[in-house]
Amino acid sequence: MCFAVTIFESREDIRCAKVVKGRSINLALSHRGRQALKHIGIEEKIVSMGIPMHARMIHSLNGKQSPIPYGKKGQYILSVDRANLNKELLSVAEAYPNTKLNFNHKLLDWSPETGAMTFHGPDGNEKEFHADLIVGCDGAFSATRKQFLRRSRFNYSQTYIPHGYLELTIPPRNGDFAMKPNFLHIWPRHTFMMIALPNLDKTFTCTLFMPFEDFEKITTGNELLGFFQKNFPDSIPLIGVDALMRDFFRLPAQALVWVTCSPYHVLDSCVLMGDAAHAMVPFYGQGMNAGFEDCIVFNEIMDQFNEDFGTSVSMRSHVNSRYFLFRKFLDNTLHFVMPKTIIPLYTMITFTRTRYRQAVIQWQWQNKVK
Amino acid sequence: MCFAVTIFESREDIRCAKVVKGRSINLALSHRGRQALKHIGIEEKIVSMGIPMHARMIHSLNGKQSPIPYGKKGQYILSVDRANLNKELLSVAEAYPNTKLNFNHKLLDWSPETGAMTFHGPDGNEKEFHADLIVGCDGAFSATRKQFLRRSRFNYSQTYIPHGYLELTIPPRNGDFAMKPNFLHIWPRHTFMMIALPNLDKTFTCTLFMPFEDFEKITTGNELLGFFQKNFPDSIPLIGVDALMRDFFRLPAQALVWVTCSPYHVLDSCVLMGDAAHAMVPFYGQGMNAGFEDCIVFNEIMDQFNEDFGTSVSMRSHVNSRYFLFRKFLDNTLHFVMPKTIIPLYTMITFTRTRYRQAVIQWQWQNKVK
Repeated sequence: MCFAVTIFESREDIRCAKVVKGRSINLALSHRGRQALKHIGIEEKIVSMGIPMHARMIHSLNGKQSPIPYGKKGQYILSVDRANLNKELLSVAEAYPNTKLNFNHKLLDWSPETGAMTFHGPDGNEKEFHADLIVGCDGAFSATRKQFLRRSRFNYSQTYIPHGYLELTIPPRNGDFAMKPNFLHIWPRHTFMMIALPNLDKTFTCTLFMPFEDFEKITTGNELLGFFQKNFPDSIPLIGVDALMRDFFRLPAQALVWVTCSPYHVLDSCVLMGDAAHAMVPFYGQGMNAGFEDCIVFNEIMDQFNEDFGTSVSMRSHVNSRYFLFRKFLDNTLHFVMPKTIIPLYTMITFTRTRYRQAVIQWQWQNKVK
Repeated sequence: MCFAVTIFESREDIRCAKVVKGRSINLALSHRGRQALKHIGIEEKIVSMGIPMHARMIHSLNGKQSPIPYGKKGQYILSVDRANLNKELLSVAEAYPNTKLNFNHKLLDWSPETGAMTFHGPDGNEKEFHADLIVGCDGAFSATRKQFLRRSRFNYSQTYIPHGYLELTIPPRNGDFAMKPNFLHIWPRHTFMMIALPNLDKTFTCTLFMPFEDFEKITTGNELLGFFQKNFPDSIPLIGVDALMRDFFRLPAQALVWVTCSPYHVLDSCVLMGDAAHAMVPFYGQGMNAGFEDCIVFNEIMDQFNEDFGTSVSMRSHVNSRYFLFRKFLDNTLHFVMPKTIIPLYTMITFTRTRYRQAVIQWQWQNKVK
């Protein structure tokens, strides 16, 4: 069956944009996400533009670096550029003759009963559109989800962790990466940590995760320098003192939110996917991968039920509790910083499509019998 | 200090209303709630219009009734009429020369930065109002709270339990109560239960709590009668077969929601109280009592900080985590149906102003050392 698909995006077409806004530029692509890309024929292309990370590289206070592999030999995750990935996905979508893209359309409201949506269009006017099925893939602060919240018996939770994040850059050194590129570099420091992921242009993007109250203590350049000298001394020459001073104070630390909800659908007219349904904190690198896997799962269910929307949408909602359990398990801890204890679980999550729930159960069992 | 207080209520003045809409007509008033009423001088008046319930009365399947006291001799909770209580509170508020009541005013939006509120007024027009402090006491589905949800780092959770509720009535028999009046009657039946509270007019209001999926199984009068004959046989002659058939199908079962959020304030311009901040399921009889206690707590803090709004509002938000813990502890269980195991905790919650959190901790400790 061939569906007429219309995509509405609130931002401009990033393929033409001069400045790309948005969150972190790095994403960690793993097995679940790659499987979805394979379905639409761009796995190889995206992988070729990604940088394999075979291990974590733990930076001690004294500057010593110790690798901890992600899985077995040959298993790796990929550092991919968010903007590039978005651009490729838009081009793939646009190539389908039955798909139409609309940019600069901001969803104002929609009706579960009629499937009518109202957008604020690029010309400043309101615009109506009707769909048999609305798929809300509009992120952690989903506009689609607002309509869900107005209905009875919709369970919803948004939880901000005490940590904020802030991005810094390590430029190339002598035209090459300033650190070993095929690693996810981590500076674990108890209640806070910094990570760095490699980019194709031989820079690294560093992300500092720290409780907001600690960010608030750093208000001057001297305090900042003191903090980095004490906690991340080896990173200072890599980032550069001037760049550190400039970039740290450019933007306030950004918040990190968990979102869970249930059900994911309203009637048979709308279903939520990705961060709109289950936004996660980034420490497990699962946000994008889980969102992409949603697409595979929905596809599988649509095949199974002969592309009947009603049945597929409600079946789709039955496979959801696993995210909730996964979230409960991870909760607000920074699992990244304790890689040794979580490698078996991490391997299942990252290198297989084992259901999140099953992975957690299996891992708990392994820990018990040890 | 004397504040100019303006009250906005979305409904009409129930003192003039012909038909009073709203949730359950019964409320269980206990120590926390009475303390607040004492502060405003109407404890005795409300108590005189309430019916003391000294114990639960457990109805077995075979019709046997067994009392289980609420606390020590002399300790009791009061069945009070929601509409009467609301009317008295409005009259007390109106009697203050610095207080003005506005009915039929529906909050559309407000601004945390300016304190400006927009209402849909009784004449159908929008109306602006400005306040130095907005106190949102607008219930589980608070309109005030919507503005909180638009801001970053606001933690929010709404969780519907699988149970719905439905109300039935036991009329007087020969001009008197059809069952012993000074009890909260309970028919515990594993995954569901019915309770009955006495009213001043010698009726009882019965509330059936049951999973929605079980409500959905009862679609005909015969199914209903079979269900009552099997589970609540002694209640059938009390309610009356005709009334049962009529009232059961009048309205669908209503949902029950837990709401938790944090913080309870935005800047120093708004604070949430009562169900708007921490809506609870009714099994512990704490919704109204906790809401009233919020008023005492806020009053105490205002005294302590010389009625400085900013300090008081943020201090107010520090005493909140106890509700969250209390909720976590009770979660979705029907503690009403296991009165024996919870009497020590129930006593602390109901007959004292022991902090909810402290009560739970103390009770857990008691259980350990037993």
